[in-house]
Amino acid sequence: MDKNIPYKTYLEESEMPKQWYNVRADMKNKPAPLLNPATLKPMTAEELGVVFCDELVDQELNTTDAYIDIPEEIREFYKMYRPSPLVRAYCLEKALGTPAKIYYKFEGNNTSGSHKLNSAIAQAYYAKKQGLKGVTTETGAGQWGTALSMACAYFGLDCKVYMVKVSYEQKPFRREVMRTYGASVTPSPSDTTNVGRKILAEHPGTTGSLGCAISEAVEVAVGSEGYRYVLGSVLNQVLLHQSVIGLESLAAFEKLGEKPDIIIGCAGGGSNLGGLISPFMGQKLRGEADYRFIAVEPASCPSLTRGKYAYDYCDTGMVCPLAKMYTLGSGFIPSANHAGGLRYHGMSSTLSQLYDDKLMEAVSVEQTKVFEAAQQFARIEGILPAPESSHAIRVAIDEALKCKETGEEKTILFGLTGTGYFDMVAYQKFNDGEMSDYIPTDDDLAKGFAGLPKV
Amino acid sequence: MDKNIPYKTYLEESEMPKQWYNVRADMKNKPAPLLNPATLKPMTAEELGVVFCDELVDQELNTTDAYIDIPEEIREFYKMYRPSPLVRAYCLEKALGTPAKIYYKFEGNNTSGSHKLNSAIAQAYYAKKQGLKGVTTETGAGQWGTALSMACAYFGLDCKVYMVKVSYEQKPFRREVMRTYGASVTPSPSDTTNVGRKILAEHPGTTGSLGCAISEAVEVAVGSEGYRYVLGSVLNQVLLHQSVIGLESLAAFEKLGEKPDIIIGCAGGGSNLGGLISPFMGQKLRGEADYRFIAVEPASCPSLTRGKYAYDYCDTGMVCPLAKMYTLGSGFIPSANHAGGLRYHGMSSTLSQLYDDKLMEAVSVEQTKVFEAAQQFARIEGILPAPESSHAIRVAIDEALKCKETGEEKTILFGLTGTGYFDMVAYQKFNDGEMSDYIPTDDDLAKGFAGLPKV
Repeated sequence: MDKNIPYKTYLEESEMPKQWYNVRADMKNKPAPLLNPATLKPMTAEELGVVFCDELVDQELNTTDAYIDIPEEIREFYKMYRPSPLVRAYCLEKALGTPAKIYYKFEGNNTSGSHKLNSAIAQAYYAKKQGLKGVTTETGAGQWGTALSMACAYFGLDCKVYMVKVSYEQKPFRREVMRTYGASVTPSPSDTTNVGRKILAEHPGTTGSLGCAISEAVEVAVGSEGYRYVLGSVLNQVLLHQSVIGLESLAAFEKLGEKPDIIIGCAGGGSNLGGLISPFMGQKLRGEADYRFIAVEPASCPSLTRGKYAYDYCDTGMVCPLAKMYTLGSGFIPSANHAGGLRYHGMSSTLSQLYDDKLMEAVSVEQTKVFEAAQQFARIEGILPAPESSHAIRVAIDEALKCKETGEEKTILFGLTGTGYFDMVAYQKFNDGEMSDYIPTDDDLAKGFAGLPKV
Repeated sequence: MDKNIPYKTYLEESEMPKQWYNVRADMKNKPAPLLNPATLKPMTAEELGVVFCDELVDQELNTTDAYIDIPEEIREFYKMYRPSPLVRAYCLEKALGTPAKIYYKFEGNNTSGSHKLNSAIAQAYYAKKQGLKGVTTETGAGQWGTALSMACAYFGLDCKVYMVKVSYEQKPFRREVMRTYGASVTPSPSDTTNVGRKILAEHPGTTGSLGCAISEAVEVAVGSEGYRYVLGSVLNQVLLHQSVIGLESLAAFEKLGEKPDIIIGCAGGGSNLGGLISPFMGQKLRGEADYRFIAVEPASCPSLTRGKYAYDYCDTGMVCPLAKMYTLGSGFIPSANHAGGLRYHGMSSTLSQLYDDKLMEAVSVEQTKVFEAAQQFARIEGILPAPESSHAIRVAIDEALKCKETGEEKTILFGLTGTGYFDMVAYQKFNDGEMSDYIPTDDDLAKGFAGLPKV
């Protein structure tokens, strides 16, 4: 091991970020605004305020301030589980026999099991500050719902979670964690909303989708006094909160006197990837440094690598504003054999714009290869990774093996977003040799694209 | 919050312990030796070497060396998940309104989910060094089995785990984590051993016990070329390895300029409690400092508070040496409604002697009260604790509330041994209001005592 570089680097509390970084301020081409689905005009703060908390609306629309203060209450909560460690993967490097230096930023050391808590506590804080009774949301794999339940318990807010039915049934323990934190959890689609009843009537026996759960959560928030809707990914405000990951990483690298060449993150809606790369991207946009950024997505849900860059509905029920993003169409649902998260049909507008501007690369990987990397990583580095995070591990290993061939001593940073402790059904399939891959055909994708709105 | 005391204190890698501390060296009354069940004479190193690795036998019998070097390979592995944080529970203090300062040493931030990895990696290392093919063990709640699987994966050792049948069935995901790390997991009692077949014949339909799983694991180790048996608690060697918890805690307190008044740990076989208190107990034994030590055990398995201090069998099949310990009798099995670990019939000989010498206190708590504390802690401090750890939380909260009454500003340290992510069946019972308590009657205990050997 390098004498001066420990396995784990923690910032001191005094070194933790006091402001989030808003990458949009440094983007020449700003991400396209959300559109009102009725008027096709940009959503106003007033219109957004019906759905979201007021301060979060301000953050959503703010494309000019590079730094936004993190309120002290949130910084105090961050201190309970942050800073997260920047880990040097010495054992993995040795096992691969690579000259590359591999680092990962590990966000899994909290009960939500992922980075989602970074934004959940912020959104709960602003809801509390606004005097609300509670919030509604959707959850797929369950990480976001768990994180929000924890945040709401901390601030004494009611928390209503619509959980994609297939996850609700396959992950009873995720559900139970949320209940332990006092949240109510409803399988979606449900008969508690108009949109849920409509979807159930049209598709009896459906196991649900994220887009549908979003529609239900939004409907309940808008129709309930003192409630707002909160979302764990895709939105600009979420990327803003998640910038704490990248800011800590950057500060830790500076402390070590190191600099990554390649930065890799898994990408579903973009919350982790956007948060991890933001401050580094800012340096690149300002011409201060250069990095290769790689978004890794599942081959079964390839919004960046095979999607269209277009305005689309954010939800199945079409109750949400339209967003311009790389999308597979709001009707797209990954095949049933897809394990874990990263199943949203679209990608964060900010990341979509950066990708369209060729500031970031994207690759897609098949899930059996992802779980091979997950198992290898678990046995060597000791941490059982979340399936989502393992997409980034897969590509980090592949890049390190390329360095082995070329002899290049590149420095690789990837985001280890979380742990897989609630994903053992998927691991069991892999352990039993029963996991399969599925890559949608062009015809499959054409069906999704056919549903894109004419904007 | 105190200006100079962060939420979390991490030692630098250079400050991590390089030696384990062996509390027996400072004990005036040494723990009683293990006895050969046939001759009733103290077990020799040679006899123990049939079951255990040679260097571990040396450690087991060593009552004179206060410090034993931690081999570099183990220290490297420790760096992957240690140092563990010493956490100041500011939010809990505030919620309780207590003048007490509450600290906890959190051992749950690794995939095994508990402190068990501290000894697992040590035992796997010595097995590897001895050129063995593999090791066998038992696991109850599953934390030890998981930890050993991880350690064996790291050193490329085969790992055979006998898992108490009721846990095997109720915790399929624990089993799957072990499989992901390459271990084979067999529900106990099984038909793969003589002792298993005998127990199955005598008690058809039994859901197993730790004592029975130990017997099976020992039988397989002794009967297989290149295998030894390893155990995750009770033994002196385990307390030695676990002293890393207490040594880090002591160093962190010294760094902060603080000193605990009360040190609290849950106690099943004694691995966590013994490890946490050892260095502090050493100071007390040497007259350098004074502390109150409190062992917390389940009311349903009260070996210290209601057991007898006597020689007893360590396992149901009576294939192991006899140990002098506080015990409920090797036939004692906690009632079926007992959730989680802390279900072993006896207590570490070292801790038993310290308790008998009145150097340590013990209390028992009922499990509904334990889960109330667990839920409260989860919501306030953000970490979902293991049921075992929650015994210590319960008493830490009770002591902090006493301080609130008296106005005393005591400093409380407790061991948060792990997380409850694989214990959601128990949490679900609690959330649904279906958890009950059970305190064995004197008659129940008399049955266990009747099986004590005449030594």
